[in-house]
Amino acid sequence: MAGYTGSKDDYLKRLRRIEGQVRGIQRMVEDDTYCIDVLTQVSAITKALQSVSLGLLEDHVGHCVVGAARESDEAAEAKVREAADAIARLVRS
Amino acid sequence: MAGYTGSKDDYLKRLRRIEGQVRGIQRMVEDDTYCIDVLTQVSAITKALQSVSLGLLEDHVGHCVVGAARESDEAAEAKVREAADAIARLVRS
Amino acid sequence: MAGYTGSKDDYLKRLRRIEGQVRGIQRMVEDDTYCIDVLTQVSAITKALQSVSLGLLEDHVGHCVVGAARESDEAAEAKVREAADAIARLVRS
Amino acid sequence: MAGYTGSKDDYLKRLRRIEGQVRGIQRMVEDDTYCIDVLTQVSAITKALQSVSLGLLEDHVGHCVVGAARESDEAAEAKVREAADAIARLVRS
Repeated sequence: MAGYTGSKDDYLKRLRRIEGQVRGIQRMVEDDTYCIDVLTQVSAITKALQSVSLGLLEDHVGHCVVGAARESDEAAEAKVREAADAIARLVRS
Repeated sequence: MAGYTGSKDDYLKRLRRIEGQVRGIQRMVEDDTYCIDVLTQVSAITKALQSVSLGLLEDHVGHCVVGAARESDEAAEAKVREAADAIARLVRS
Repeated sequence: MAGYTGSKDDYLKRLRRIEGQVRGIQRMVEDDTYCIDVLTQVSAITKALQSVSLGLLEDHVGHCVVGAARESDEAAEAKVREAADAIARLVRS
Repeated sequence: MAGYTGSKDDYLKRLRRIEGQVRGIQRMVEDDTYCIDVLTQVSAITKALQSVSLGLLEDHVGHCVVGAARESDEAAEAKVREAADAIARLVRS
């Protein structure tokens, strides 16, 4: 079980929609669609992916970090460190 | 013709790779892969998409904005405004 | 006490350096320094501020969220929600 | 003269306000203000700085890149490359 297991179907639905949007951009590029319109679509996908990341992160902190906090100081520290690294990657991507 | 038309095949190759990565994340979620590993992959895709956006934007400025600048003040102004809006969307996504 | 209280001096030092960098940009603008050089400096400050945010966030999760997790389910849930909102603001800023 | 010279006073006003906000955060940290409230303020400054960057970038493209486009292909190419690098730094910061 992962932190997001309870919302698995919702994440899968969102990811399939994102996959379809990426295919949509391929068609736009094949058709030489105007650059700005392609860019608008790419920004929409980036936003959708970021929203998936934010959801996964909240599930992770709410389940895995909270669980570790109740286990031991060492477990909590390790999970907090790992979550902080993931947040940093997210902010910088 | 769009600003990126000369590099169309390269963009299509990158977008197909991104599509495959999105499918890969769906499999990770189906298998209840550890949250942090899924997040790392989503960040990698976001980075790849941003790199596509930056490329499209450079092509756009290099072709469409430069072209408009040589046409007239009004054309230049309109294209600069439009590019600035696209950059803002990109930075905020 | 806040989650970051133990590292207060370090944060204050970083924030004073950032304040100095913002003043530095004012001088650059007053001197009509080349746009790209001003932009490079603004990006450096944004990065420094983001690094302060990431530190505060890690301190917050490590102290306040972990503390709430050990208190009760309700306390944990409220702190996780609040942290998730702060992460979202950070990612979108 | 730089691309932003016409709006210099406006930029200086915004930068002075940002400087004041950075000082405000120092006071919050000195007073052990709750982490989330500090984070909200830091995000507000990051947003304000990004808005300065977006303005400088638009001024730069509208003046320097457009000017170079009217000068020569080589000048245009160099300025477009440089602007694209600045945009990439902005997106990744």
